[in-house]
Amino acid sequence: METPTERDAGALRRVVIEGLRPAVEGGLVKRTVGEPLVVEADVFGDGHDVVAASLLLLAPGTERWREVPMEPLGNDRWAGTATVAELGTWWYAVRGWVDRFATWRRGTLRKLADGQDVGVELAEGAVLAAAAAERAAEPVATTLRAVATGFRDGDTAVLVDDDPGFATTMTRLAERADATTTTPLELLADRPRARFSAWYELFPRSAGAKSKHGTLSDVEDLLPYVAGMGFDVLYLPPIHPIGTTHRKGPNNSLTPGRKDVGSPWAIGSAEGGHDAVHPALGTDADVAHLAIAAARLGVDLALDLAFQCSPDHPWVTEHPCWFRHRADGSVQYAENPPKKYEDIYPIDFETEDRDGLWSALLDVVLHWVDLGVITFRVDNPHTKPFAFWRWLLAEVRLRHPEVIFLSEAFTRPRVLEALAKVGFDQSYTYFTWREEPWELEQYFTELTQTDLVEYLRPNVWPNTPDILPEHLQTGGPAMFPIRAVLAATLAASWGIYGPAFELGEHRPRAPGGEEYLDSEKYQLRSWNLRSKTSIAPLLTRLNAVRAAHPALQQDRTLRFHPVDGDDLLCYSKRSPDGTDVVLCVVTTQSAEPRTGVVHLDLAELGVHEDQPFELHDLLDDRRYTWQGPDAYVALDPATQPAHIFEVVRPNAVATR
Amino acid sequence: METPTERDAGALRRVVIEGLRPAVEGGLVKRTVGEPLVVEADVFGDGHDVVAASLLLLAPGTERWREVPMEPLGNDRWAGTATVAELGTWWYAVRGWVDRFATWRRGTLRKLADGQDVGVELAEGAVLAAAAAERAAEPVATTLRAVATGFRDGDTAVLVDDDPGFATTMTRLAERADATTTTPLELLADRPRARFSAWYELFPRSAGAKSKHGTLSDVEDLLPYVAGMGFDVLYLPPIHPIGTTHRKGPNNSLTPGRKDVGSPWAIGSAEGGHDAVHPALGTDADVAHLAIAAARLGVDLALDLAFQCSPDHPWVTEHPCWFRHRADGSVQYAENPPKKYEDIYPIDFETEDRDGLWSALLDVVLHWVDLGVITFRVDNPHTKPFAFWRWLLAEVRLRHPEVIFLSEAFTRPRVLEALAKVGFDQSYTYFTWREEPWELEQYFTELTQTDLVEYLRPNVWPNTPDILPEHLQTGGPAMFPIRAVLAATLAASWGIYGPAFELGEHRPRAPGGEEYLDSEKYQLRSWNLRSKTSIAPLLTRLNAVRAAHPALQQDRTLRFHPVDGDDLLCYSKRSPDGTDVVLCVVTTQSAEPRTGVVHLDLAELGVHEDQPFELHDLLDDRRYTWQGPDAYVALDPATQPAHIFEVVRPNAVATR
Repeated sequence: METPTERDAGALRRVVIEGLRPAVEGGLVKRTVGEPLVVEADVFGDGHDVVAASLLLLAPGTERWREVPMEPLGNDRWAGTATVAELGTWWYAVRGWVDRFATWRRGTLRKLADGQDVGVELAEGAVLAAAAAERAAEPVATTLRAVATGFRDGDTAVLVDDDPGFATTMTRLAERADATTTTPLELLADRPRARFSAWYELFPRSAGAKSKHGTLSDVEDLLPYVAGMGFDVLYLPPIHPIGTTHRKGPNNSLTPGRKDVGSPWAIGSAEGGHDAVHPALGTDADVAHLAIAAARLGVDLALDLAFQCSPDHPWVTEHPCWFRHRADGSVQYAENPPKKYEDIYPIDFETEDRDGLWSALLDVVLHWVDLGVITFRVDNPHTKPFAFWRWLLAEVRLRHPEVIFLSEAFTRPRVLEALAKVGFDQSYTYFTWREEPWELEQYFTELTQTDLVEYLRPNVWPNTPDILPEHLQTGGPAMFPIRAVLAATLAASWGIYGPAFELGEHRPRAPGGEEYLDSEKYQLRSWNLRSKTSIAPLLTRLNAVRAAHPALQQDRTLRFHPVDGDDLLCYSKRSPDGTDVVLCVVTTQSAEPRTGVVHLDLAELGVHEDQPFELHDLLDDRRYTWQGPDAYVALDPATQPAHIFEVVRPNAVATR
Repeated sequence: METPTERDAGALRRVVIEGLRPAVEGGLVKRTVGEPLVVEADVFGDGHDVVAASLLLLAPGTERWREVPMEPLGNDRWAGTATVAELGTWWYAVRGWVDRFATWRRGTLRKLADGQDVGVELAEGAVLAAAAAERAAEPVATTLRAVATGFRDGDTAVLVDDDPGFATTMTRLAERADATTTTPLELLADRPRARFSAWYELFPRSAGAKSKHGTLSDVEDLLPYVAGMGFDVLYLPPIHPIGTTHRKGPNNSLTPGRKDVGSPWAIGSAEGGHDAVHPALGTDADVAHLAIAAARLGVDLALDLAFQCSPDHPWVTEHPCWFRHRADGSVQYAENPPKKYEDIYPIDFETEDRDGLWSALLDVVLHWVDLGVITFRVDNPHTKPFAFWRWLLAEVRLRHPEVIFLSEAFTRPRVLEALAKVGFDQSYTYFTWREEPWELEQYFTELTQTDLVEYLRPNVWPNTPDILPEHLQTGGPAMFPIRAVLAATLAASWGIYGPAFELGEHRPRAPGGEEYLDSEKYQLRSWNLRSKTSIAPLLTRLNAVRAAHPALQQDRTLRFHPVDGDDLLCYSKRSPDGTDVVLCVVTTQSAEPRTGVVHLDLAELGVHEDQPFELHDLLDDRRYTWQGPDAYVALDPATQPAHIFEVVRPNAVATR
């Protein structure tokens, strides 16, 4: 027979802790430094004894758990709040125990109120106080010994006066030997930019003068343009030497000319691999210089991590076992049968030399971090093992907790989510293909009002070099502002692939496809940034509005409001403290004017039904006074596809 | 630096498994033997390789895991089904792995369809087939070697013909070294009676002739009465010797007379404790005889497990350390300050002699099991540690998996649920206090349509010796049938405290309280079972309907249908195979006739909108033909408080 003590290693843990939130199955919870962490759990014991609970926190790089008292919310639910003040990996847990002093105190007070003799109770209280004194430091210990003496003398003052200091002290000093503590959960505390960011992607080789191969120095010259629009992350596709074997020509053709530049994602040549800079772009020093120049303008330089090789990559000969060899001895190229991608060798993460490979990939990241790059966009992370990312990201963060990783996983939902769970700070989403109001409402409700919000930070892009969505191809120039407004206000992080986006590039390589015609992926392009049709002014305005409004700097408070009227979407966001409220109304189609009636949840906006409130349109600076939940709206995509209202309340106070 | 292999103990587990259901945090899942177990999980890997998954099952008392293939449901969700065929504790888990053969097969077939050369692919297929042959027994191994030879010779027949046997064999023989397997979860397989039961509680000392102390032999004489009403569990309050110290008199008075019998829950006297029979009731042999006689009528005898002692219990002197001693040396009696229960000593589960105490309590249970008692109603389990119950129930089941435990925990929701999680088969519920249609709908929707259904089996009681609810005090005779119909049809397990219930006993000891006047808890009572106002005939009918209709023998398919009309509740249940459908309409108040319009979810009933269907009232045998979702109903509590319809469909086939 199994003895009872064998079953629970000697301790009788009377308190049960369940339903701990936040908790991410198979992954970690995310916050940015300064954000509150509210932890809730069901904490209860058998019988009628009083239970107490605390939130345990282990800060990055420390070994001593900090304890924050939790408060009961009713129905055995408890909550504790902490702020994660330092970058890095935190651990948290909930502890619960039977509070013998509080149990004694409650019963004794009730007996006193009932006029019963409490002589025995006071004798027992003296034992409790004396035991607590043993665990206390001075001067508390002396005080507690005095209380014990008082109890023995029948002095109930400290009890009857309900001295909160005494009760708190006793709870703090409670015997915890039989406490129940949950398995610690992991929390990643990131830089605020992981939560709130505006990304701008450009091909550095198109940054030069017309038909000349651009350089990192040319990119540096573009920094004022990018920063001037309010973008705070500048992301460059791979900057490494490009292979020549099976190089692709313009428009993905298989017959390149001698001068064709190839795809930056065909990484590696005799000139180097993932830790080298393409000679035509510059040097390591140029990278470091660009990173510093960007930082001076408040912009993070982001590089691409595309862990795949061209057939000419040095690793192919130096580490042949890092690639899969076929039955005929050839190296396995990338394929999605029947399609072949002969210019790319996938890395074989199942190699026997796992330590060697994984360490080399870590070294790649650390190399760029050493040059000042603390932001990475990761190409196709879903084609590499989750365990690899969990390891790599943890190893990088151990050394550099400020590094941010964006997951480019345009794949199935569970896979996309799993990458966020193992530690990616931000994730590309399906926004690019969500067009209708109901689709957008459903998707962003899922992103912001479910457990996803605890670990997946959406970074939404109207376009990428790989994706020119159908609505941008056919929607006319008015579709670009629409998608920009939606991206910049629905999500705290957004990005564009420019200058193609602000210049309205919309020609597909082939009808029905999403590839750009004359895509920069395969050739140099030249862009007229001074074009009169550029929507750079709108992008500038959008990023300025975002910077000025804390409501738009997070995703948790996104709420949709019903609209009677086709092709209209209405939503609001509140800042965490409730003082800033932004209300958006957007038409999702670009063809014709649209009218409708919005039905506002006034409580979300912090206004009362009988109270007029002013709406200040942050796009055109007009002001409106509304009252009550229903309002008529009219939007013309040709001139004004959206309202972004600041809600001005007569007596603005923190709500909720 | 942590090396990659340190991180995952050498294996690169590429498959992730999450969202496994059913799963009960901190507890076990329950089924009855013969019930299907459908296990679902998200199973996915990185990249584009084909993934396979299986459900692993470990039957009670075995050591070899059985493997059931799982099927994809779409969106990376997989499901596998097994039937738990034996009583006892099962374990289940989900395993997922990259199916290299299926990946190869899919790619090769696509290349063949595209007209590509597959010479290298066939060479690789030959390696896969040869490797599988190494893992196979004869004659499969020989077949696989022939396939490998065929591949090497360019023979694609077995591939192109899409031989399902070959593919299945290869999947079965797949290399699983890097498979991901979830932590096994516990499942308790009970007797069907744990799912479907009708309990009848009576005080054996009131079973005798008028004003004479009844005996277990008298109870045996009542078996035909109880079994005749269709009850299949006969539950007796504690049958042990009763203490005399601080004995309570009639109506809980503190001044009993010499002949007063005391409360059966004040267990223990010089005549014995929890393993003794009160001499006035009989002997161990009488218990065994009663259990056998009951079993002959299909009735389980259930005893009460009330782990508390009277001051006269032998343990108080034999094992003083099993009780808490106060500062003045006295034994702590039960109290809920300022209330005192001086006739009861709670057991101190935190005793230093935990092994001795817990083992003694286990021995108590085993003693009664040895006498043929395989059903227990546990008194106030929430005042003993959860860890104790987890241990006790597991220990009993290891020896006697047929034993059923009913938890009497009228306490807070999380505590009530936690007891079900640690292994109680059935649980008393809040039904006794749920009166209004909306309350009943909300509560039973929670019980049957949330995760609760995986581990908590409601056993609903209109009354107990401790609870005469207010509506039975004031609702008049018509309220008793109403509560009986609701209990018997809303839940697969129900029970009554009789004969007080069928005889309409409704007098409270004090207004505003829930105690019975002249409660059997403190005195003998005599009941006229032949009373003309007894509702025994209705109870008989209800239990007969339940026995004839599989729809009523489980809780998972309970669905509520909207009603326009006050005080009316409408709900249906389908049998798991969909062939049996029962529809109930009940008025919840007893004062006046009520009319309304029900709006049926016809799909739940398995009928079409344009198809008339017959309703056969199982209470009064009348038949109605309805069509469409809406129907007028009129119920008069004085004559007919409810319809219990069998839904008769023209072409009844299994639905859903």
